[in-house]
Formats: sequence, C-alpha cells, structure tokens
Amino acid sequence: MSELRKDPVTSRWIIIAAERAKRPQDFKTEQPAPMKPEACPFCEGNEKRTPPEIMAYRKKNSYPNGPGWWVRVIPNLFPALSIEGDLGKRGEGIYDMMRGVGAHEIFVESPKHVVSVTDIPEERMREVLWAYRDRMVDLKKDRRFVYGLIFKNVGRSAGASLEHTHSQLIVTPTIPYTPGREMQGASEFFRFRGRCLFCDMIQQEIDSGERVILNTADFIAIAPFASRFPFETWILPKEHSSHFENLPKYEIDGLASILQRTLKKIEKALCRPAYNYIIHTTPFDLGELDQYHWHIEIMPRLTRIAGFEWGSGFYINPVPPEEAASCLRETDEFAFEAAAARTP
Amino acid sequence: MSELRKDPVTSRWIIIAAERAKRPQDFKTEQPAPMKPEACPFCEGNEKRTPPEIMAYRKKNSYPNGPGWWVRVIPNLFPALSIEGDLGKRGEGIYDMMRGVGAHEIFVESPKHVVSVTDIPEERMREVLWAYRDRMVDLKKDRRFVYGLIFKNVGRSAGASLEHTHSQLIVTPTIPYTPGREMQGASEFFRFRGRCLFCDMIQQEIDSGERVILNTADFIAIAPFASRFPFETWILPKEHSSHFENLPKYEIDGLASILQRTLKKIEKALCRPAYNYIIHTTPFDLGELDQYHWHIEIMPRLTRIAGFEWGSGFYINPVPPEEAASCLRETDEFAFEAAAARTP
Repeated sequence: MSELRKDPVTSRWIIIAAERAKRPQDFKTEQPAPMKPEACPFCEGNEKRTPPEIMAYRKKNSYPNGPGWWVRVIPNLFPALSIEGDLGKRGEGIYDMMRGVGAHEIFVESPKHVVSVTDIPEERMREVLWAYRDRMVDLKKDRRFVYGLIFKNVGRSAGASLEHTHSQLIVTPTIPYTPGREMQGASEFFRFRGRCLFCDMIQQEIDSGERVILNTADFIAIAPFASRFPFETWILPKEHSSHFENLPKYEIDGLASILQRTLKKIEKALCRPAYNYIIHTTPFDLGELDQYHWHIEIMPRLTRIAGFEWGSGFYINPVPPEEAASCLRETDEFAFEAAAARTP
Repeated sequence: MSELRKDPVTSRWIIIAAERAKRPQDFKTEQPAPMKPEACPFCEGNEKRTPPEIMAYRKKNSYPNGPGWWVRVIPNLFPALSIEGDLGKRGEGIYDMMRGVGAHEIFVESPKHVVSVTDIPEERMREVLWAYRDRMVDLKKDRRFVYGLIFKNVGRSAGASLEHTHSQLIVTPTIPYTPGREMQGASEFFRFRGRCLFCDMIQQEIDSGERVILNTADFIAIAPFASRFPFETWILPKEHSSHFENLPKYEIDGLASILQRTLKKIEKALCRPAYNYIIHTTPFDLGELDQYHWHIEIMPRLTRIAGFEWGSGFYINPVPPEEAASCLRETDEFAFEAAAARTP
C-alpha cells in the first residue's frame, strides 16, 4: 500500500507509491510504442484485459465485463491509492503520515478505439459526465474519503499511457494542495467582500469580453486573467454552485456541449496538442458553500516547465490570455468537424 | 515589457511575457539541434555573442567582454523581466497587476565548453557561489525588488536551451508562490513551537539517518520526507541562517564541496539525468529571521507530470525517499571521477 506524507514546510501532501516503486535503472527505459487497437484493453471485446468493472452504462441484455456498453468504469490497474483499509493516521516527530487509502478509477469513454473525446457524439459526452457524477456520489458516502479529483490526460507529454479516450478519478483522504489553496483564497475574498470570487470573475469577464471564448446559456469558457500556461481555459457554471456532482440535468447537457466545443477549438487551433483537464470542486464533507464555485481547468501542454517554475511556483506564460481567447473565439469548431469528415 | 498578474483565487503571481509571445503555430516547431561548441555564445572567445557582461571574475590584465574570465555574469537575451521602469502597480476590478520589472541574469560557470558543473574544479565552484552571492547583494539594494531566485536547468527536459554549464538568477518584485508558502508554513510552526522548523528537521534527520545522503561539518544533504519527485534532494546549512547571501566564507567552501559531491552522486546513480536546482532564501526586505532557513532543492526530472499533479498539487512519487537516500549514500562519487578520467 502506498503512503501519504505531509510536507511539514508547505503542508502539501504527497503520495509515496511503493507499489509503483522504481529502481534507478527503470527511469532509463524508453516509452513503449503506441498500442495496436486490437491489443487495446479499453476496446469493446477486450473487457477481460482490465480489472472487473465498477460500473458501466450498457445495453439491457448485456452482461458485466462483456460487450454492449458505451461508458465503462474500471479500477486503475496500478492505483496510486487503494480502496481497502483504515487511514492509520500517525506522526513521527515533526512528520505526519497516513496509509495510501483512496480510490483510483478509469472512465473508458467509448467502446470503439477513438483517440479524442471530441470524436464521440455529444449525447455520449453527456453520459461520460453522468458517470463522473455517479462515481462521485457513490464514493462520497465513504467517510474515509475527503476529495474527488476528476481529470483527463491526453497525449504522452500530458502523462497519458494509453491513447484510447479515457479520464480518471482519484479520491483522496485529504484535501489536495491546489484546491485547498483555491478554497482558502476564495474564502478570504468572501470574508472581505461577502460575495463569491468566481461569480464576480464571471461578471467581470462577461462585461469586458476580451477573455471570453464561449458564452452559452449556463456556462462560460474563459482564458483566465492570470493563465499559467498558453491557452489555459476554464469552464464555469454561470449560476453559483459549489459541488460538481450536484449539477442539474439540464446543466449536464450544457456542459457536454461547451466542453466538447472548447476542446474542439483547442484541438483545431493548436493541432491536437497534448492537454489535461481537471475538475475542481468542493470537498465531500462540506455542504453547499457560498464562497466556492466548481469549474473545469483545461491546460494544453505546450511549454516546458523549467527550474524557475518548479522552484518558485511563478509561471512564465508567453501567450497573453487575451490573445489566446481571441484566437480560440475565432476558431470555428464546427468547420473542424466538416474538415475531419472529409478525411475518412 | 512583460506584465505580472495575480491570480485572484490562489494569490499566485504569473509573468505574462509579451516579448516572448508566440502564435499557435510556433509551438509546433521542433527543438533546435545541440549547438556546436565553436558557435556556443558562452564559450571563451565568443563574448561578443552575448549582451555586455554585468560582472566577471577575470584575470587582472583582461578586459570586459573579452577572454580571460572564469565566471561571467550576463543579462538573459530573452529576459522574463526587465530592469528598467517603475512597477506601475494597479488594479482592474478583482484583478491586480504590475509591470514586469526585475532582473534576469545568466551565470556562465566555465570559459570552456563544459556540460556539467561537476566537471569544473571545486575551487571554481566556490567562485560560482561567490558570484551568486555578489549578484544577490547588489540587486537587493534596489528597493523595487523583493526576491532573488537562483536556479539551474540541466538537460532539455529540465528546460535548458544551451548545454554549456550555466545557472540563472531571476529577481522579482513580489514573493514567488512556493517560497511564500514555505515561509508561511515555517512561520506557523515557529508560532506554535518557538523553534525553526528546518532546524528541527535537520536534527530529526541526523537522529534517524535513513534519509541522510551526506553529512559534512557545515551542511547536510537529505532526501526530504515528503519528496515530490524521485531522488529529490535538499542541501541545508546545519547552523541556522535565513539568507543565502549572508553565508560566511568557510561555508562557501563547504557548500561548493557538498553541492558538487551530491550532484556527482545523482549523475552517477541516474546516468546524468536532466535536473533542476533552486535556492530558497528569505526576501530582500526582511532582516535575519529565526523562523526561515535557506536551502537548495535539487529535483531530477525523471517522471512525467500528468493532469492529477497539475490540477491537485498532489505529487505521486514512485521512489520512497529512504530508498533514494540509501542509493545515493552508497554511490561513490569519487569513483565516478576516476571512471570519467578514463574516457577522455
């Protein structure tokens, strides 16, 4: 089992993943070549190559761990955290630690060997979001767990090891560092001004318009004012809401649409770059909050992170977000589909 | 001029480097091939290929921007921050910003085309550290500047664009995010216990011994308890000191030795990996502090950072620091020199 350790200096928790342990020489091995679709463990018909499924949306007459599904949730074969056991919280002098208890699940987003989530139909994208929601709702019942982090890695330089379109959920027994800092900052703003920082941000972005990428009935996609990375994009619900998993059905529909449209714009403008997206939401053990606002952060992986960024947390972004937003606004995501359709 | 922007959510400052601006297609270009030594702007004899030097340690009868030096400090040709102008601090609704004023300098650590700083003699390494100190002392006189961050990028995957051994200094008009968080954590510990957190850490590490890599008269090299990265290594002065630039002469000698020895161990154990090191010290405008302790963080770049780490700040480290420390302890850094000497 892995171990969670708290850095006494920054209070950041780290996962020491002993199961994934590597010796020095293991770091020298090259990355494996891309897998042939017939050998892909995520393709329909290859269900036996993965651990037994946790959940699947599948045809009525089909059986678990067989074909007939359109979204399938499985445990990660090399989990960062394990589902069994108690936390065993303990200290050792100035150090704090606990057992690596949590969940690490994979959402397979298509039964076919599709590489981009923008290539699945919009109604299937909604089902992917429903699966995110269902797993969050199920796991938050477990009192050992504190936070659910849904994320997607696309492309090798963004950390993906399989190309078949998928996303992941890691549930942790502590609040991760970055969402924790976000909540702290938003709480300070709320204490000072009595309003949600994100709601103010959405209003100011709509008023100025220069960093808006898409503005639909229920959601807004913006290039954030202090973007860390070129073409960083956030998607936020326009109506205040602190918990992703509480979003109403009509918002699922709206989110599926704006998420796919935004990703298509990024794929078209930047020629299918490697990217990550991540959902920032409120910890499991807190009720509806006035001061926090869930959102999705999309981070194309275009620049190399060097010593200055690692050591300082001070990012150097060569693309002003106003230019990124203007470029993505002008990118016609529907023309992309037509062009893609022409090359079979 | 670039612009500094504060993320209203996390209070993290970001540099929007308009001069370095890129269009989407610029991200597709491949990295340039390694440069031939005769074309290297850092090699002795090629001084005219860099901006005029800020400072150099050179022979008495030699002239600035000509040969005869052993450490040379020059402005970065593509600076993230510029030295001229006032800060122009301003707000716009919920957003805060200022002009990208600061310094961005390069330390060329050898007149010869040497790729690793472990290949320069130890007495030259001391001179590199003296140059770090001299530039910090000079720049902290400027009241616009708040923090000096010294760092080194080695290898392309660590962000180096030239292979000739060098390090950098970026001076910022705000406290960078990560050292700011470190100071906050150390201050909380000090308020609670009345002692320096780092001094306690050094004592606990010496007592247990399992994460110690090198323990010399004045310095200790350890694998930190909550290492974010495999083989992450910190070097700390054993006597409490908050400011790197105040270190006494005998500690410069000790630091040159332990830094080169530690880097040699890492290079030998991991076959000259890409790495970064960074010096964390106290902001310019603060006097000697009881609660903060300067140190060097060395981060080999062995693992890929994926969506989970980016979005959560929660790192997954596959190598327990006890194993990394044991491996580096057992690696004979002097045997490496002998082996290197055999292959000319």
